[in-house]
Amino acid sequence: MRVELIAPEGLPVFGRGDDLASLIVDALAGERVALASADIVVVTAKALSKIEGRVVDLASVTPSGRALRLAELTEKDPRLVEVVLAESTEVIRARPGNLLVRHRNGWISGMAGVDRSNLGEEERVLLLPSNPDASAEALRARLFELSGADVGVVVSDSHGRPFRIGNTGVALGAAGICSVRRLEGQPDLFGRPLTGASVVPSADLLASAAILLAGESDEGRPVVVVRGLDLAKDATPAAELVRPAKGDLFALADRDYG
Amino acid sequence: MRVELIAPEGLPVFGRGDDLASLIVDALAGERVALASADIVVVTAKALSKIEGRVVDLASVTPSGRALRLAELTEKDPRLVEVVLAESTEVIRARPGNLLVRHRNGWISGMAGVDRSNLGEEERVLLLPSNPDASAEALRARLFELSGADVGVVVSDSHGRPFRIGNTGVALGAAGICSVRRLEGQPDLFGRPLTGASVVPSADLLASAAILLAGESDEGRPVVVVRGLDLAKDATPAAELVRPAKGDLFALADRDYG
Repeated sequence: MRVELIAPEGLPVFGRGDDLASLIVDALAGERVALASADIVVVTAKALSKIEGRVVDLASVTPSGRALRLAELTEKDPRLVEVVLAESTEVIRARPGNLLVRHRNGWISGMAGVDRSNLGEEERVLLLPSNPDASAEALRARLFELSGADVGVVVSDSHGRPFRIGNTGVALGAAGICSVRRLEGQPDLFGRPLTGASVVPSADLLASAAILLAGESDEGRPVVVVRGLDLAKDATPAAELVRPAKGDLFALADRDYG
Repeated sequence: MRVELIAPEGLPVFGRGDDLASLIVDALAGERVALASADIVVVTAKALSKIEGRVVDLASVTPSGRALRLAELTEKDPRLVEVVLAESTEVIRARPGNLLVRHRNGWISGMAGVDRSNLGEEERVLLLPSNPDASAEALRARLFELSGADVGVVVSDSHGRPFRIGNTGVALGAAGICSVRRLEGQPDLFGRPLTGASVVPSADLLASAAILLAGESDEGRPVVVVRGLDLAKDATPAAELVRPAKGDLFALADRDYG
């Protein structure tokens, strides 16, 4: 079995209102690649955020009392904390240097994905796309319109994690692919049925694979095309990847952060 | 940039004492692929465990009092819990259905990686390789001997995780590659230095990418060759991926499991 990962060079720095699908098709054409059905296009959430204009000017933000308290506890800019709280439904952990929250869209991550880097201006921050599953679906539709290819789309980000260092890939949005493959009931090598633990978070794994090419610094490879996997059947959105708090050993807040 | 992932078909079910390097070279030859320097060979920990004969017969195990108590709490076989405790230094969480421990080699995972599936016999379990970084180095040396290619090696496993469903890839061992890439100090797109959070756990990402090809059921693709990445510089073992407990928001035991 062979799988190819293609990160086209020469994509521009994205700006509000850009036709991302068109830019992707053009950049791939520069590499003599045409999208084909079953290809999976992994695009960073940050790229979509820029295109969707998800920018907040910190100078316009007045922190609440709660934001001021959490900012002191976490040693962060109170205006930034205010923006994070507005994007979140719950604070999971707050420690010096760490503010872990549940995003309005359900997933748990540091700072609700609010990002200061790669924006070029000190006082402006970038929020995540407002609905990454919808963004993925829209990009998928537009790519079909332009190329005729029935592709999958993953909107990727990277999250820190307990127990191990570094950020790994997560899919915040997905369309046209099976985000979670459940192997339960399928046989192992010896015909013994696999148990409930055999759940493959394919969309997250695609996001992790893409990081190997994209880097996180000035390398500028926000799009990776994955070719050779068959994940089109039983398509589900990335929302399915979020573990319900009820079954999670770690997702409960350890105190009242009100 | 292009990266290729190649999972050779036709590898046998591994047994104790097999010359894994030789089997890999032969299987790749069947696909008309010759290893080249800078290729990265990702092999599952389970394959190495079988070759290293890391099998325990549960019939030979007498559970301690501690194992009996934890088995009741977690609703697991006391003999299996005894084996897990012998592989571990600390219990992090114990709940019905879940036993999370710190393995003797440092990482935190469910059941210390002790596995009942894919072994073909109900009463026998498979431990992880005793020193996966050393196993990786030995495989790398033998592959060089056979092929003349200076490759990287990752010994992969999959771990469940808080917050999100499914198991993602982890590198338990590595040789000849930079397991953790630290981007700190490098410029972002606008020349602003990236902060300490920009740590790329390349070896774990490789393990995750390999899962996309390997599956976890009866597909039998325990080896994936990754071609096109440049990770040979500043090689470090996989042990570097483990987050020190001191800086971890979640790694402390929530009670005394003595």
